[in-house]
Amino acid sequence: MDTKDILTRFREGQLSIEEAASQLEGIQDIGFAALDIARKKRNGFPEIIYGEGKTKEQIAGIITALEAEHLPILATRVDVEKGSYLQAAFPEGTYDEMSRTFFVNPISPSSEHYIAVVTAGTSDMPVAEEAAVTAETFGHPVKRIYDVGVAGIHRLFKRLDEIRGASVVIVIAGMEGALVSVVAGLVDVPVIAVPTSVGYGSNLQGLTTLMSMLTSCATGVTVVNIDNGFGAAYSASMINNIRGASS
Amino acid sequence: MDTKDILTRFREGQLSIEEAASQLEGIQDIGFAALDIARKKRNGFPEIIYGEGKTKEQIAGIITALEAEHLPILATRVDVEKGSYLQAAFPEGTYDEMSRTFFVNPISPSSEHYIAVVTAGTSDMPVAEEAAVTAETFGHPVKRIYDVGVAGIHRLFKRLDEIRGASVVIVIAGMEGALVSVVAGLVDVPVIAVPTSVGYGSNLQGLTTLMSMLTSCATGVTVVNIDNGFGAAYSASMINNIRGASS
Amino acid sequence: MDTKDILTRFREGQLSIEEAASQLEGIQDIGFAALDIARKKRNGFPEIIYGEGKTKEQIAGIITALEAEHLPILATRVDVEKGSYLQAAFPEGTYDEMSRTFFVNPISPSSEHYIAVVTAGTSDMPVAEEAAVTAETFGHPVKRIYDVGVAGIHRLFKRLDEIRGASVVIVIAGMEGALVSVVAGLVDVPVIAVPTSVGYGSNLQGLTTLMSMLTSCATGVTVVNIDNGFGAAYSASMINNIRGASS
Amino acid sequence: MDTKDILTRFREGQLSIEEAASQLEGIQDIGFAALDIARKKRNGFPEIIYGEGKTKEQIAGIITALEAEHLPILATRVDVEKGSYLQAAFPEGTYDEMSRTFFVNPISPSSEHYIAVVTAGTSDMPVAEEAAVTAETFGHPVKRIYDVGVAGIHRLFKRLDEIRGASVVIVIAGMEGALVSVVAGLVDVPVIAVPTSVGYGSNLQGLTTLMSMLTSCATGVTVVNIDNGFGAAYSASMINNIRGASS
Amino acid sequence: MDTKDILTRFREGQLSIEEAASQLEGIQDIGFAALDIARKKRNGFPEIIYGEGKTKEQIAGIITALEAEHLPILATRVDVEKGSYLQAAFPEGTYDEMSRTFFVNPISPSSEHYIAVVTAGTSDMPVAEEAAVTAETFGHPVKRIYDVGVAGIHRLFKRLDEIRGASVVIVIAGMEGALVSVVAGLVDVPVIAVPTSVGYGSNLQGLTTLMSMLTSCATGVTVVNIDNGFGAAYSASMINNIRGASS
Amino acid sequence: MDTKDILTRFREGQLSIEEAASQLEGIQDIGFAALDIARKKRNGFPEIIYGEGKTKEQIAGIITALEAEHLPILATRVDVEKGSYLQAAFPEGTYDEMSRTFFVNPISPSSEHYIAVVTAGTSDMPVAEEAAVTAETFGHPVKRIYDVGVAGIHRLFKRLDEIRGASVVIVIAGMEGALVSVVAGLVDVPVIAVPTSVGYGSNLQGLTTLMSMLTSCATGVTVVNIDNGFGAAYSASMINNIRGASS
Amino acid sequence: MDTKDILTRFREGQLSIEEAASQLEGIQDIGFAALDIARKKRNGFPEIIYGEGKTKEQIAGIITALEAEHLPILATRVDVEKGSYLQAAFPEGTYDEMSRTFFVNPISPSSEHYIAVVTAGTSDMPVAEEAAVTAETFGHPVKRIYDVGVAGIHRLFKRLDEIRGASVVIVIAGMEGALVSVVAGLVDVPVIAVPTSVGYGSNLQGLTTLMSMLTSCATGVTVVNIDNGFGAAYSASMINNIRGASS
Amino acid sequence: MDTKDILTRFREGQLSIEEAASQLEGIQDIGFAALDIARKKRNGFPEIIYGEGKTKEQIAGIITALEAEHLPILATRVDVEKGSYLQAAFPEGTYDEMSRTFFVNPISPSSEHYIAVVTAGTSDMPVAEEAAVTAETFGHPVKRIYDVGVAGIHRLFKRLDEIRGASVVIVIAGMEGALVSVVAGLVDVPVIAVPTSVGYGSNLQGLTTLMSMLTSCATGVTVVNIDNGFGAAYSASMINNIRGASS
Repeated sequence: MDTKDILTRFREGQLSIEEAASQLEGIQDIGFAALDIARKKRNGFPEIIYGEGKTKEQIAGIITALEAEHLPILATRVDVEKGSYLQAAFPEGTYDEMSRTFFVNPISPSSEHYIAVVTAGTSDMPVAEEAAVTAETFGHPVKRIYDVGVAGIHRLFKRLDEIRGASVVIVIAGMEGALVSVVAGLVDVPVIAVPTSVGYGSNLQGLTTLMSMLTSCATGVTVVNIDNGFGAAYSASMINNIRGASS
Repeated sequence: MDTKDILTRFREGQLSIEEAASQLEGIQDIGFAALDIARKKRNGFPEIIYGEGKTKEQIAGIITALEAEHLPILATRVDVEKGSYLQAAFPEGTYDEMSRTFFVNPISPSSEHYIAVVTAGTSDMPVAEEAAVTAETFGHPVKRIYDVGVAGIHRLFKRLDEIRGASVVIVIAGMEGALVSVVAGLVDVPVIAVPTSVGYGSNLQGLTTLMSMLTSCATGVTVVNIDNGFGAAYSASMINNIRGASS
Repeated sequence: MDTKDILTRFREGQLSIEEAASQLEGIQDIGFAALDIARKKRNGFPEIIYGEGKTKEQIAGIITALEAEHLPILATRVDVEKGSYLQAAFPEGTYDEMSRTFFVNPISPSSEHYIAVVTAGTSDMPVAEEAAVTAETFGHPVKRIYDVGVAGIHRLFKRLDEIRGASVVIVIAGMEGALVSVVAGLVDVPVIAVPTSVGYGSNLQGLTTLMSMLTSCATGVTVVNIDNGFGAAYSASMINNIRGASS
Repeated sequence: MDTKDILTRFREGQLSIEEAASQLEGIQDIGFAALDIARKKRNGFPEIIYGEGKTKEQIAGIITALEAEHLPILATRVDVEKGSYLQAAFPEGTYDEMSRTFFVNPISPSSEHYIAVVTAGTSDMPVAEEAAVTAETFGHPVKRIYDVGVAGIHRLFKRLDEIRGASVVIVIAGMEGALVSVVAGLVDVPVIAVPTSVGYGSNLQGLTTLMSMLTSCATGVTVVNIDNGFGAAYSASMINNIRGASS
Repeated sequence: MDTKDILTRFREGQLSIEEAASQLEGIQDIGFAALDIARKKRNGFPEIIYGEGKTKEQIAGIITALEAEHLPILATRVDVEKGSYLQAAFPEGTYDEMSRTFFVNPISPSSEHYIAVVTAGTSDMPVAEEAAVTAETFGHPVKRIYDVGVAGIHRLFKRLDEIRGASVVIVIAGMEGALVSVVAGLVDVPVIAVPTSVGYGSNLQGLTTLMSMLTSCATGVTVVNIDNGFGAAYSASMINNIRGASS
Repeated sequence: MDTKDILTRFREGQLSIEEAASQLEGIQDIGFAALDIARKKRNGFPEIIYGEGKTKEQIAGIITALEAEHLPILATRVDVEKGSYLQAAFPEGTYDEMSRTFFVNPISPSSEHYIAVVTAGTSDMPVAEEAAVTAETFGHPVKRIYDVGVAGIHRLFKRLDEIRGASVVIVIAGMEGALVSVVAGLVDVPVIAVPTSVGYGSNLQGLTTLMSMLTSCATGVTVVNIDNGFGAAYSASMINNIRGASS
Repeated sequence: MDTKDILTRFREGQLSIEEAASQLEGIQDIGFAALDIARKKRNGFPEIIYGEGKTKEQIAGIITALEAEHLPILATRVDVEKGSYLQAAFPEGTYDEMSRTFFVNPISPSSEHYIAVVTAGTSDMPVAEEAAVTAETFGHPVKRIYDVGVAGIHRLFKRLDEIRGASVVIVIAGMEGALVSVVAGLVDVPVIAVPTSVGYGSNLQGLTTLMSMLTSCATGVTVVNIDNGFGAAYSASMINNIRGASS
Repeated sequence: MDTKDILTRFREGQLSIEEAASQLEGIQDIGFAALDIARKKRNGFPEIIYGEGKTKEQIAGIITALEAEHLPILATRVDVEKGSYLQAAFPEGTYDEMSRTFFVNPISPSSEHYIAVVTAGTSDMPVAEEAAVTAETFGHPVKRIYDVGVAGIHRLFKRLDEIRGASVVIVIAGMEGALVSVVAGLVDVPVIAVPTSVGYGSNLQGLTTLMSMLTSCATGVTVVNIDNGFGAAYSASMINNIRGASS
């Protein structure tokens, strides 16, 4: 809502004075949190709920508040116990266990431009699905290309055309993360790399993968935090938005 | 050149058998290096010369080989001594001391969509200029918004409209890198963060800045290696290409 | 008690010889610990009980010993199980679950000068409450300004006047900790930064936040250990004491 | 200057339109930097010049700009070569080699409340002097208590009364930094600890000292970055301002 | 047993050929381990059993084998469950829960020269008791001086004479470990420092304490691994042996 | 020489008593060093001289002593200044600047089985040449396959047959070291990986490359220290010896 | 199967079109994974199943798919619960609890050349057994030489001849890993070092051991990841294959 | 001097009032330093001058002050330039380049009990000589046993009797530091380990060696800081004093 809408609706009694003030300030105070309800207007995406470190009641409280805004809602890092609670509380939403996400009111895709989500191994799937669900919730088609790590590089080449057809490629890998460099050397679109904490010993809980991806010999790669499938998809969606806008 | 062109030119004697083979294989062997001359076709950008760890003669040798390909040429991390040598050897090129780059045959911009390059402080300028020159060499307009760090945040707000108008924003900062989170919270386009090694002690030569940017509370941020202005600009150019293609 | 008081009371039989010696030496030996009962005189604050790594019986033993000194008593890092035990053992005290503190005999505030406790997100609340309860136990008014992180910076500006009115500001944040630099750039009183272990991956359990705050681009910032709400409040109280003394 | 002053002086022709705009915006654009000339009003102290990573010409340019504001000027991390240049360019200023500072127009102390600067060893002196000169430039009396490290703890006790008389104590130490804990256990005012990079091997260029001070067993300690004498003095001055205001 | 004894007892049938070979080789093969039964002769102390990572049956097996050698037996890092098992299996031995040790057949002290075990806080007690029990098992008198950390340094001074009377001092501390430097500055005998994992955040599970002790400003300090009370006592016993031998 | 030879030559006066004792003990005392002259017999290779941290005179002294043993001699990490000195002192030897090696009396290859030395980029050449020269000095044919990093992976495939034909493959790479995983996924012989310190920022002077190679997703990879071309070649030579012995 | 075989069997109806395509592509798609069934041909060993991070159903699915290939099957990092499930599902296989492996259809040894697996202590046994079972599954004889760490070095010397008789030696040790350097100094075959996470404090979960082995003073050592018994055995088997091929 | 002596000499005019006060307080103020002249009495050794970070004039000033005390004087970490200056200023002293020490008035040895200084390689010599000269300056006989690292372990065994005859053994090694564990497993006296910064890559400037020594599998080992030959000798001298006192 822009400023005039808010004022008009306030004058017409559709908004209370508290609601109108909250809209004008872009902040909805729900006691334990100050929701940033202006984010959609400012950033193009509404506020996303990071579920870790929040109680299930807090998550539900935020969802309730956001539903009033009629925006797509996404909560990430939602474990099974919280997920069941939310599913019961909001039957209109969907809890997805693999990606640990809960979403309500996803946007239907309106463009054919897709984001490719590529993984090195099966252990990277939870992070990949977090990325895929995030992008899909905000209306972006996703092509999943999983288990194509470089130890058997012919698996990657078999699916190279699908990767090359994407607007932007998210590459998700643990261990040494070599898949990122190989993919980035073969495509002409931006690559967003997500290191995962898959590995042991010298892997250092994904820190080696992270550092390795940052010092990749290939160009066109940017990196997000360890296991941050959501963050990669958020940036990829911003990029695909440009493509979508122009198609 | 595509395969048929190469074969035709070979039959017509325009290419020697070595040249034709080199083109078909996408590799030009110049003794000390195996140039990847297919990169432009594969990645959308030709091979860039990373000047550190190469002698000035090696850099000159690669430039000579690339000039034959009629592509824009960019060498980064070129210190003053190497720069003077290259300037003398290739008077048609330009050495830029601040950004430590040498470039030949830059592409003229063909779109009005620009990349914003934003810095926190004056010490970040060499990295920022490396980013700016890289983007400009490949035909992308750049808007420089320097010295707007959060210690005096009104400086940032004064220039916010210029930042918001960009296709993609590169934020360059040292120390704690807070500027990235603040900017990413205010725009609706992708933000690429470049940590710089500006700081001392707990800054750990930019490692703290890097880690900090990766764990940013704002969304829509991806990160490149410390001081990697080139890498940020490369990815930003890929994104701006999409915008450009659609305008 | 000063030396003459102790001697007088000893001669009058109000203190046993062990009690008098203990007072004169500033040490009360309770078997498993040597309590520093001179700390109030020396440091301005009595000894605080760090609850982690102590059994509930040990904590209770120390509280019993300190109660004899007629001082405000504060135990931190008291989990729920220990808290219930203490609440039952000392009904005159208060266990606060959010801040994991148990306190007895708090001082009533005698000044209007307050300490601002500012947080970036809701996950920082336990640390913030540890800080707030500590300050309040020693008689300092506290103003809580929570969930004003820089991803939605308008939330901070809305409450800036309250922050600027404080004698000293405690800023509590996880992830990249950018809120510290922004706040410190906007106030003219000391800022004490508390990094929290909120985040994952490159956050390194708060180590990145800690390092980041130490290399902040803003001036007037000092830092305490990760999640050390107590320590920040202790120093802030010392500073507010000065203000209080002069009002 | 407040807003009305600026407008009045502009109408009267004392300020050009550029000067008036610059004052109103709080930013003075000097080409390579955007000076934050509103900082004094906002933070209580004018902008300080961090000399490292700036050319001597840049430092001189900033000094010239700041002199027009009639504020005390302080540049830190000024090496001998830059210092000589500045001394010649601004004979009214003072270059101090030990502290690597250049200052112009220091404020005369107007209070008797002093800051104690305490060091463990002689190698900590450059950092200590940076702290002392910073505080003195902004009008705060300083008491220097040097070379009282715990290996010969009687040296500390000899000077304890001087330390206890301060409004705030800055403790500067390298190696294991034990002096901080000992001092903080003996005073009732805030202690600001400055780790120095004095030591070798496991000292890790001051990182061990930094970490050690942050995990000090004593309370009332806050910490700044390695070798950051300036930062400690800045916060200490803010605290002493409170004392001064009330005396 | 020396070589001739073994051969004589073998000829006389007191030792089987396997037993004699085992004695001559200094190795007793018990299936899952190759016991080093020559260690007492070579190192002055018999092999000690490190209980972590061994099953209770394995520990019992080693004790049985060592009992045949008629030497004092010590097992460290024995948790309660293993301890109960061992106590039942070897009623002649003693399980001590605080120090997590199980010992059989300790040596009676034959000298008055003692080892001082000094701790900073009550949380250091398990490590201190591991040190004390180790020394006592091998016949060394121990004087316990606990909870004398530097935050209340008068507690240390009260007990300084006892510390100064020792042959060697073991100082056990967590957090910043400052007690080591203060003690070492006050005594003329070797100090062995044991860092403990007491602390949080920047303490890094005792790594900061370890590093800090290694870079201590005081001389005469050597250091063992984190929480290694046993190792400190072993070396201290070797030193006290010299004293004992000469008294 | 075996024991009887030594004794015979001693009796016949060909060896002095010192020489005979030295041979029997396997140690040649040359004042500043105790040469391990039995290493050839024990390890299959004579002692190699690590040139860093030794003066040129020390290196020359060791060469003189080893020449008497009639073995191939190799000194590594010999900078240009030391190399010139050695070349002048031992004209029969060869100084190679690229690999920083000096060698005398290399063994002629007696087998056709070769070691492949594969590099990612031109900056890895000094390490690769150290490996190649080491292997060649001890009689092993080497095939050099340079500049085939994964950013242009077609360069690798072009030379895959040469790599597959080797007895053992040494892969040398900096940055993220992805080449190792790709190569190991394509061959059926052991791969020895050498991380190089090529890269910056998150590369951490080769530490990221090292860690990354250790956590490679491919099997059949073992790793040596950063820049340790010599060590890789030493192990590879041991493996090729087996092949050679069987051909 | 080679290409002609596949085509012939397809024409004869022995393979369905999906099976034939899968064989020709070297990929078997089983839904949650893309099995690399060409690995045996390419690498000499079939794909091994890394059990950690996979469900027991996933492991069973992969085993079923691999059984159709008539190859030896090995799954590592299989905990007891998964092991019981697999044992029940595949009674023809063997679950080994100590090594946490499950294997089916191991190859019988056809050569007398053996791999020596040497450990420092009993706590290293699980890693050693993972190595031993891996080698044995692929047909290589193994000699186990356990508990010969350097604290009682005579234990090592007693078994030196057995170690020297191996084709390749795997040395497995935790703590400081000194056994590697001592063994490598005494043999003339390749040594593969496996650091284990045995130790505490400064051991850093095996990272110190890893780093220490990489900087070993002895030559002929290569290193694998912490606790990676499988990886060491894989490379050792490749080396022993050479020996076996030549005998 | 004890208190009565000082007072007597003061009354007799042999000491000025400043000198007497200085003696009674144990502090000699020389402007830039507060010398701890009571250290000899308190610690058994006079204050040693750590030369790094002090100017040559400062070192000379301290020597002059200490000479008046008639004690042995030792300055460490004295580079050649400072050494020449001191040699000229104090011809009665001795500058030793290898150990970088300057000493005056060393104590003659009065006991036959010696300290063994054992090194792994020739590169460890500067640290070893710092240790040896320190011990000798304070009157302790030293036996040097150099270049006996474990890569050629027979060199160590040849000299084992000399090592076993010492009161205390200092073991100095770089790289993986394995020599410490081997020696400690073979002697029955305390071992003090000194890690050196000899090595590269994974050696991490001696940090790996340090950590490795702390996690040694052998008992009876304590450790000092990297390259801290002085510290090891100081503690060893304290131990040998005990032996000496009893002989």
